[in-house]
Amino acid sequence: MTRTSADQTLEQLASAHSAFEKARSVTPSTRAAWLEAVAAALEEHGDELIHIAKRETHLEENRLGFELKRSIFQLRLFAEEIVRGENLDATIDHADPSWGMGPRPDIRRAKVPLGVVGVFGASNFPFAFSVMGGDTASALAAGCAVVHKIHDGHLELGLRTGEIAMDALTAAGAPVGLFSTVAGRQSAELLVEHPLVKAIGFTGSTAGGRALFNKASARPTPIPFYGELGSINPVFVTEQAWALRKKEILAGYAGSFTMGMGQFCTKPGLLFAPVNETAQFTQILTTELAGKQVAPLLSSRLRQGFDQALAEVAAFEGVDVLVKGNEAEAPRPSVLITTADTVRERPELLELEMFGPATLVIGYAPGANLSELASLLDGQLTSTVHAEPDENVADLLTVLQEKSGRVVWNAWPTGVTVSYAQHHGGPYPATTSNTTSVGTAAISRFMRPVAFDSFPEAQLPPALQDMNPWNIRRRVDGQWEEPSRRAG
Amino acid sequence: MTRTSADQTLEQLASAHSAFEKARSVTPSTRAAWLEAVAAALEEHGDELIHIAKRETHLEENRLGFELKRSIFQLRLFAEEIVRGENLDATIDHADPSWGMGPRPDIRRAKVPLGVVGVFGASNFPFAFSVMGGDTASALAAGCAVVHKIHDGHLELGLRTGEIAMDALTAAGAPVGLFSTVAGRQSAELLVEHPLVKAIGFTGSTAGGRALFNKASARPTPIPFYGELGSINPVFVTEQAWALRKKEILAGYAGSFTMGMGQFCTKPGLLFAPVNETAQFTQILTTELAGKQVAPLLSSRLRQGFDQALAEVAAFEGVDVLVKGNEAEAPRPSVLITTADTVRERPELLELEMFGPATLVIGYAPGANLSELASLLDGQLTSTVHAEPDENVADLLTVLQEKSGRVVWNAWPTGVTVSYAQHHGGPYPATTSNTTSVGTAAISRFMRPVAFDSFPEAQLPPALQDMNPWNIRRRVDGQWEEPSRRAG
Repeated sequence: MTRTSADQTLEQLASAHSAFEKARSVTPSTRAAWLEAVAAALEEHGDELIHIAKRETHLEENRLGFELKRSIFQLRLFAEEIVRGENLDATIDHADPSWGMGPRPDIRRAKVPLGVVGVFGASNFPFAFSVMGGDTASALAAGCAVVHKIHDGHLELGLRTGEIAMDALTAAGAPVGLFSTVAGRQSAELLVEHPLVKAIGFTGSTAGGRALFNKASARPTPIPFYGELGSINPVFVTEQAWALRKKEILAGYAGSFTMGMGQFCTKPGLLFAPVNETAQFTQILTTELAGKQVAPLLSSRLRQGFDQALAEVAAFEGVDVLVKGNEAEAPRPSVLITTADTVRERPELLELEMFGPATLVIGYAPGANLSELASLLDGQLTSTVHAEPDENVADLLTVLQEKSGRVVWNAWPTGVTVSYAQHHGGPYPATTSNTTSVGTAAISRFMRPVAFDSFPEAQLPPALQDMNPWNIRRRVDGQWEEPSRRAG
Repeated sequence: MTRTSADQTLEQLASAHSAFEKARSVTPSTRAAWLEAVAAALEEHGDELIHIAKRETHLEENRLGFELKRSIFQLRLFAEEIVRGENLDATIDHADPSWGMGPRPDIRRAKVPLGVVGVFGASNFPFAFSVMGGDTASALAAGCAVVHKIHDGHLELGLRTGEIAMDALTAAGAPVGLFSTVAGRQSAELLVEHPLVKAIGFTGSTAGGRALFNKASARPTPIPFYGELGSINPVFVTEQAWALRKKEILAGYAGSFTMGMGQFCTKPGLLFAPVNETAQFTQILTTELAGKQVAPLLSSRLRQGFDQALAEVAAFEGVDVLVKGNEAEAPRPSVLITTADTVRERPELLELEMFGPATLVIGYAPGANLSELASLLDGQLTSTVHAEPDENVADLLTVLQEKSGRVVWNAWPTGVTVSYAQHHGGPYPATTSNTTSVGTAAISRFMRPVAFDSFPEAQLPPALQDMNPWNIRRRVDGQWEEPSRRAG
């Protein structure tokens, strides 16, 4: 298996740093053109990449095609965002002798890129959270250089995606080294430890992510570790919604937890519902699940982990198997069931992630306090409520906001659109930060603010010059000013 | 000496959490009224507080008066800021079936407060970075509850400021426990370790701050530790500026490094200048310093640390004493001098903070590369350049931006205005984060984003409802929308 040597990794880090220094001051339009060049190259090589991805990950072609399209779209959206200057948070306070606390000097602030960023790709999204996924795209958009550690689960795809991206960047005029890939554990550790690396983007397991977070925090100079470590994603169904829409809800549930063979970090792993009988309930679920296509999991290692986690949950006293999957190479989905009393007694049951096509139903008794049940949960990427529009679920929503990064109403958490308002994050252990790894807000994670105090116009960076040469939106003396309308 | 017991601290933490839960959803105007009530109370009790502060800190009355005025202004500015909703980052993406990567659900994001925040006051700013200083004001403005650990250096002032603030909050209708104070080391450790505490704001020493940062990062659930740990604040004078304005620059330098007896975290501790003779140079500095009033340092502990640091720097081979202070209870200022070659050989000399009225001049030879010298520096809160407006100092400015949070042009770093554009932060060891502890941007440190996916209007929080009941500025489908004009 390909492994990048330590010497080679160090050389790439030095080259990334030198590329960062060359590229740090290019205009937003130049940087945007680099992102667009990568997008165009991925589009051009789409068939080839999907072909490799299918072989390496067992994911189906349509899904892979959608994921690649999403990654390409993301690069283009981020390119637009940086041309608008939204990531810069440009703020200007002119000198003000009558400022309330005493005379104010001229002070202006904008964000600057951090430097070299190490990105760890995830196994379960070989495009969207991998080599040219959200972390890489946002770090490059921020103005950083990226060394990407390819996930072992799709090494060939990672290498090929990396080559295509590097060629596209070079052809577009970006300095060599601005983006590169490494493989293997030794390189991974070097990324987290090396003084030239200023931040880490990571998507992966809680155990692995926490170990790297600890390393990043213990460095002589600690660095931010933006880790997305996974989530169980509880779903709460109110009694009213259950009475009115049980069948529809269970159909959605079955579709969501089996999507991508349940290998989504937003897979709904818990369903709190007022289940008062199991015969009809099991029948609906069995019918819904019968039609689902199955495939092998991403890797034999993940499969082993899934089998173990499923067995561990099933072995809990008070947990029963409602729909039994199987142990074929392409496993059929499993549904387990327990009671609210069981999880009240042993809330640790709510923290066991079964990464694959399995989920746990928690039947609650009529009149149960859903916000009290929700308060047993750990931090989550998402929480979902199925309720009627006029129901008073304020207390439940308050707890779910406290526990999660995204709250979903009468829909399903799988599928995370890339947009301005998206937030893909959440309290620990869902992530190790208060930031998002999806959407335009992800860009500024890889930047830091710098204030310029009493500078003459000619010495200011363009983003902060009075003449506003980049034509970006800025806050001036407390008021936001719109840029003049753009051509096109 | 007053020490809060462990039981009492735990009780205050529980009470803070319960107050946070009661107060989390109040309108921005209600919360703003609470901040304004504290501001008015501090104003009302100003004379009493300054009297206590003077006795406990040896700082002069004018300076203390200004510091209190600044803290009061800060509370009012933050009150305005939250009424405008600037801290919420409210973003709305309506459902869009033609979104580039595939249909987009309705998704909306706003920031919510973190919960209970622990704040550690600094000794050197008994108002501005203490009980009702920037960290407390920003955490309360964010919607958090605060338990403030009073600095031992001004315990009586801290307790009295706390009482005044608590009374004002209660009288204004805020829930009991939203703000309280503790004292002593045991309480300090409880703040950092307790599961109910969701973030720490800290201003203090590098050693103490790093130890607490390590604790915060090693918790089962790590929390952000916003630590401002200090800085040496280098000043670079170009040959041109030196030739034209040596006397003026040295006068400014002498004023800045002795301000508040040199006990500012933005004190200019290093001056890089093309010193080619010492006689006239020493004479100018001696004259400038002769007129400075002196006072005892904040505490005997700080005084001991200052004497040690000064002795340590003076003992370096290649460092000479240019202006000798003295060892009186109110010590006169000291100026040390060395050469660029010495710091090139032993750059660790640039990392020794002398917290008090002392500074180190680094004489460089004609033609020296200032950006190369700057690259020897560690992370800083501020860096300063004295140059002529049309000089090309781009390389130096690039390095200083990389090394510091605020770059000052032909002015002095002491004095940090509270405004929209201010950034008081900087790379480690200046701080442990990429955020600011001064200015309106400090508020959102104590918040995290939550996305609401597919919610009906009636179930959305007010900040995200289409009707915009709080009348705040929001980004809607990628475009920023101004609120309608406010009355008043």
